[in-house]
Amino acid sequence: MVATDRAEEADAQAPSLQPLLDLVGNDLQRVNSLILEHMQSSVPLIPQVAEHIIAAGGKRLRPLLVLAGAKLAGVENDRPLALAACVEFIHTATLLHDDVVDESDLRRGRQTAKALFGNQASVLVGDFLFSRAFQLMVADGSLAVLKLLADTAATLAEGEVHQLMTAHDTQTDESVYLQVIRAKTAVLFAASAQVGGLVAERPDAEVAALRAFGENLGMAFQVVDDVLDYLPEAQDRGKALGDDFREGKLTLPVILAIEAGDEEERAFWRRCLEEGDQREGDLQQALDLLERHRALERAKKTARDFGELASQALEGFSPGPARHALGQAVGFTVERLF
Amino acid sequence: MVATDRAEEADAQAPSLQPLLDLVGNDLQRVNSLILEHMQSSVPLIPQVAEHIIAAGGKRLRPLLVLAGAKLAGVENDRPLALAACVEFIHTATLLHDDVVDESDLRRGRQTAKALFGNQASVLVGDFLFSRAFQLMVADGSLAVLKLLADTAATLAEGEVHQLMTAHDTQTDESVYLQVIRAKTAVLFAASAQVGGLVAERPDAEVAALRAFGENLGMAFQVVDDVLDYLPEAQDRGKALGDDFREGKLTLPVILAIEAGDEEERAFWRRCLEEGDQREGDLQQALDLLERHRALERAKKTARDFGELASQALEGFSPGPARHALGQAVGFTVERLF
Repeated sequence: MVATDRAEEADAQAPSLQPLLDLVGNDLQRVNSLILEHMQSSVPLIPQVAEHIIAAGGKRLRPLLVLAGAKLAGVENDRPLALAACVEFIHTATLLHDDVVDESDLRRGRQTAKALFGNQASVLVGDFLFSRAFQLMVADGSLAVLKLLADTAATLAEGEVHQLMTAHDTQTDESVYLQVIRAKTAVLFAASAQVGGLVAERPDAEVAALRAFGENLGMAFQVVDDVLDYLPEAQDRGKALGDDFREGKLTLPVILAIEAGDEEERAFWRRCLEEGDQREGDLQQALDLLERHRALERAKKTARDFGELASQALEGFSPGPARHALGQAVGFTVERLF
Repeated sequence: MVATDRAEEADAQAPSLQPLLDLVGNDLQRVNSLILEHMQSSVPLIPQVAEHIIAAGGKRLRPLLVLAGAKLAGVENDRPLALAACVEFIHTATLLHDDVVDESDLRRGRQTAKALFGNQASVLVGDFLFSRAFQLMVADGSLAVLKLLADTAATLAEGEVHQLMTAHDTQTDESVYLQVIRAKTAVLFAASAQVGGLVAERPDAEVAALRAFGENLGMAFQVVDDVLDYLPEAQDRGKALGDDFREGKLTLPVILAIEAGDEEERAFWRRCLEEGDQREGDLQQALDLLERHRALERAKKTARDFGELASQALEGFSPGPARHALGQAVGFTVERLF
């Protein structure tokens, strides 16, 4: 393991996704082919919409997790490829369904698949991809995997509804926020990391460690994502500075600032996020309040804590390229600026 | 079988769902309990929306088909109960997703779950019910059933997208219409009737006969539904006369009238259905054109032909209460006025 130790040393200061891509990059290409193949349909609108959202790219984090988790679990067959595609289809279906908006929200002017193809197409193509995901799982044939992913899909939907109920509510506290992101984001990361352990029929404790790794990585990922929305230097990721603010989303930085703020500040947040009454200069005012209460730093600390838990979950596994790559992925997720 | 023959004679002139309800009514109560149980969630909006659409009733045709199909296949365990709930969840999820509309359509003023709870809630609760359906299937544990229902879900979604693409297009012909309703309606009837055959592990030919029964019944059901929309005497079913017309839907009666009409008539249909430009008196004009070309009668004939195919598919099964009840269900579907 000398080579690995040296590699770990070399990139200790700049964690990157490169070791992960080196480890499973070839497999990821095959996953991309599977994705393209299985999003086809005799109904032409389906691949059109699917291509818009899938082929547009994205980092394929969840498929990468499936592939690397399977390596860590010692899987030596091709089953993780189809399961990686399956997880990406589930993720894409939720993205398409997230795009669906109500009339009132249309006025906020989002540019999404929905804007191009309409609500109905977004919903129905999402349903199609979700069904394709289940077809891929059924073809894999493991009831343990089917149970994991069916349960995951149900929790995802619950998390999305929970988020909908708490949207624009400035009373939302950190614990509700964490509950929502665990359900809507972290469980799919958890399932992605865990599925290889089920394929390899590893002992329960090892499967649980893979799950804990994925779940905490997912928590860190979502918190960082919510922080980045308020970082001017991090605006190269298809979102504009303050998108969450304009959409009235109660994310962790804002929740921390509201908690620490006085009555006047709370009135400001209520007007902007609950009542949706936003004026020139409000975003700058929000950024100033986040700064005043060190809300972004405190949220980053939360992300780092989840990253630490993810790293700890890796400790029981033998050192090697898979463990190294996943460890780097944690560092990258926590420190990333996109 | 004397008793059955006499019963068949007695209700030959007024086919009804009663024999079906007599056959599986008790089981249907247990299915309803399962449905209520499995639509619960710690997120309160989920059962609220689900109750609005599920508990509001409906005839539970698909669960009835699952239960009676299983009887015909000789199933003697309780597995069909959960699978009947599962099929109803899939159906309900598609209803919720059908409710989702685009801004332009909102102006047509539909009263749906969407109108009460919003697009986003309709989509996400639909996703939840769809996931619950898969959880129920996974708990059943048959890969053959899982494959059937995952394939069915994919075809349903394709059918819905296909319908979306052909909506408002007055060039839609009968063959495209039949293709759409086969995918969006008949395949779920087919799967419902077939699933008991898979549970009982009946020979392929028998499973295929159950499927053919369900599929042709589903075709008849949808064509009749589209006819009823234009029958003033059939307006006790939660829809108003001409709803499909107002929504610009190209259903079989209209397709037949357009084909038989002259250029002036086609211009009328284009204005009303493609351009959505409807004026006082247009619905009456549409009804007159349907009458002139005997379009409702001809569509009813199509429904009767599918009903005939459904009845023929039953012929290979031993006479008895299950076959009798399903035969009556065909007659009821074709002749119904709601």
